[in-house]
Amino acid sequence: MINITKINVIWLWKAGLPLAAHIAKKWIEVIWIDIDQKRCNFINEWWNPIPEEAWLSELLEKHWGKELFATSNYTKTKEGNVFIVIVPLFIDAHNNPDYSIVDVVTKSIGQNLKSWDSVIFETTFPPTTTETRLKNILEKESGMTEWKDFYLGYSPERIMTWVSLSRFEEFPKVIWWVSEKSSKIVHDIYSKFIPNLNKVKNSKTAEYIKVIEWCYRDTNIALANELYKIAEELEIDFYEAREFANHQFCDVHTPSTWVWGHCIPVYPHFLIKKMEEANKESYRTLLNTSRNVNEDMINYWAEKIVLKALEINKPLKEVIILVKWITYRKWVKELYHSRNLALAKLLKRKWLNLKVYDEMYNKNEIKELGFEYWEKWDIEFDCFNLELK
Amino acid sequence: MINITKINVIWLWKAGLPLAAHIAKKWIEVIWIDIDQKRCNFINEWWNPIPEEAWLSELLEKHWGKELFATSNYTKTKEGNVFIVIVPLFIDAHNNPDYSIVDVVTKSIGQNLKSWDSVIFETTFPPTTTETRLKNILEKESGMTEWKDFYLGYSPERIMTWVSLSRFEEFPKVIWWVSEKSSKIVHDIYSKFIPNLNKVKNSKTAEYIKVIEWCYRDTNIALANELYKIAEELEIDFYEAREFANHQFCDVHTPSTWVWGHCIPVYPHFLIKKMEEANKESYRTLLNTSRNVNEDMINYWAEKIVLKALEINKPLKEVIILVKWITYRKWVKELYHSRNLALAKLLKRKWLNLKVYDEMYNKNEIKELGFEYWEKWDIEFDCFNLELK
Repeated sequence: MINITKINVIWLWKAGLPLAAHIAKKWIEVIWIDIDQKRCNFINEWWNPIPEEAWLSELLEKHWGKELFATSNYTKTKEGNVFIVIVPLFIDAHNNPDYSIVDVVTKSIGQNLKSWDSVIFETTFPPTTTETRLKNILEKESGMTEWKDFYLGYSPERIMTWVSLSRFEEFPKVIWWVSEKSSKIVHDIYSKFIPNLNKVKNSKTAEYIKVIEWCYRDTNIALANELYKIAEELEIDFYEAREFANHQFCDVHTPSTWVWGHCIPVYPHFLIKKMEEANKESYRTLLNTSRNVNEDMINYWAEKIVLKALEINKPLKEVIILVKWITYRKWVKELYHSRNLALAKLLKRKWLNLKVYDEMYNKNEIKELGFEYWEKWDIEFDCFNLELK
Repeated sequence: MINITKINVIWLWKAGLPLAAHIAKKWIEVIWIDIDQKRCNFINEWWNPIPEEAWLSELLEKHWGKELFATSNYTKTKEGNVFIVIVPLFIDAHNNPDYSIVDVVTKSIGQNLKSWDSVIFETTFPPTTTETRLKNILEKESGMTEWKDFYLGYSPERIMTWVSLSRFEEFPKVIWWVSEKSSKIVHDIYSKFIPNLNKVKNSKTAEYIKVIEWCYRDTNIALANELYKIAEELEIDFYEAREFANHQFCDVHTPSTWVWGHCIPVYPHFLIKKMEEANKESYRTLLNTSRNVNEDMINYWAEKIVLKALEINKPLKEVIILVKWITYRKWVKELYHSRNLALAKLLKRKWLNLKVYDEMYNKNEIKELGFEYWEKWDIEFDCFNLELK
């Protein structure tokens, strides 16, 4: 068995902090790296930046200052011999993956890498990213060779904010290695804190596994959205129908505008772009259509809202339309790729009397986003309660 | 409670006969109408045309000549006061529903309808078919008015060949009525032999429920097919990945060419055509894409097979390519919309040395379909075993 001195977990609050806390729970020392030293100082004083995460506060209180230590200083990582990287991978305006963050982090690791260290990535990547791009950066920056001098692995995170900590204990996790030697070492490390660990053939398989899970969701929500539009057109109650259509072999999802956040609207593009690069456009038609159907739902809803507002016996300018909830998910204060926010912007461009309410945002924050705040969220607006989740 | 004298079940072997047998099992007399009197004679002599259907032979042996009687003579239906219609609805070459059979049957019923009779359709229809087209035919042919003079209901069949009889006992079934009076009567009738019976708002909802169940399947198989093509392109083992991607919230289906038969390739078109008629093409883009992805899979497989054949160290003309199984499903001897048959035709057009084997078809039957039969189905062919189910 490998002797772990310390494990360095490289940032991303929502995913990295629960993982760090989970590892600390197993009495393994963790150095948690963040780019912002101020934030590290706060955290070292037991401040929990993700209060919505069940059991996290308890774990932080128990382990900060003992098994857990936060720092922005990469040279501190030399105390450990394992790096776990869990940084965000965004897409740009053209839906291409934006590797800038992961490249910088990987370079920093390469520059601080010692012989026999292990690097394991947890970020969701387009297939082949670990074995090509990231391996190359690590080897170039460290001047060392993977498997001979250091070990490389990939094990995609499969957590869900709120229940991340229980997921580490229960959820099947896949892992990959390059050489047989890497394999044993990377597997040994993860076995210390992940009970349900499954080896797969190679890193691109592990990368692909994580991505298709979210393609499944995107396509099935797109199907629900499309079937909802058809039901409305035929004046059929979609929700009544769904109740009876579903059974053990049928799982029609719920329609909504809520296909947002860091996963569903992002990961399908990883495969779409791969196929476009390979000149196999015909291999991504369904994924592409699903993305378009879901993205387009704000136009459908905007039209519905305007028609509804016109039915009210008031001048359109006086009809108060309230968009409730703009966050990623309830109790998760984040707006990345928020479709309700996009819907609010769309409605505002139509010069409607639009108000926004979200329990996670105060009046000033809503104002800064460019909207009027509505305090009386449960009463006194005219147009229907747009709680589309 | 209504007093049922006899129930007339109007044909379709695979669906109608199990239903007739199931009703007879509840000691209700059934007249089973078929267009072919010769076939009726055979059936009245206890011949079971669907031996693959579990428990059907036992039920037929017990009830034929007692609770069950087959005839092609519609005037015999006058002995009963309930009609259950379970006839096929095909689509034509342009994917429009072909109502010719159901129209003829409905006319015959209308002409033989007595006061206070009930008519319940079980065929899968495009939403609104029962409440418009079929109601109109019945009223016109009978000269009577629905709810005043006779009762009309709709309850889509949800059986599955092999296990149809157990499905009647377990599976949730939806039902609809026109007026309150129809409601009570139609519901009373079905309650006598269907335990899990659920009322929905109207007939078009019940029609829509049945159709979306199959849209779910079509889209999810299309997704699996697309993800399979991507995995192959990236040299990833799709089946290994699928095993680890799936969990309680993820159900990636299995890829295949087997999207055929009377349901999956047919029912999505019912909604697609409805939206096209309403000039709402944008409301059916995903359903349409899914259909195209699945239909197109034979081209993908044909290309793969040719490439595989070219790898073999023999002249291409000497490489024996075997298509195994051309039926709808194993043990169901039917070729409607068979994609393996379409694949075999496609390969034959490419002048390949093609053989066909299917346990359900003998040498002559395969010959009549225009293919060479291959007896040694388990050995001695060159190209890979195309058992794509």
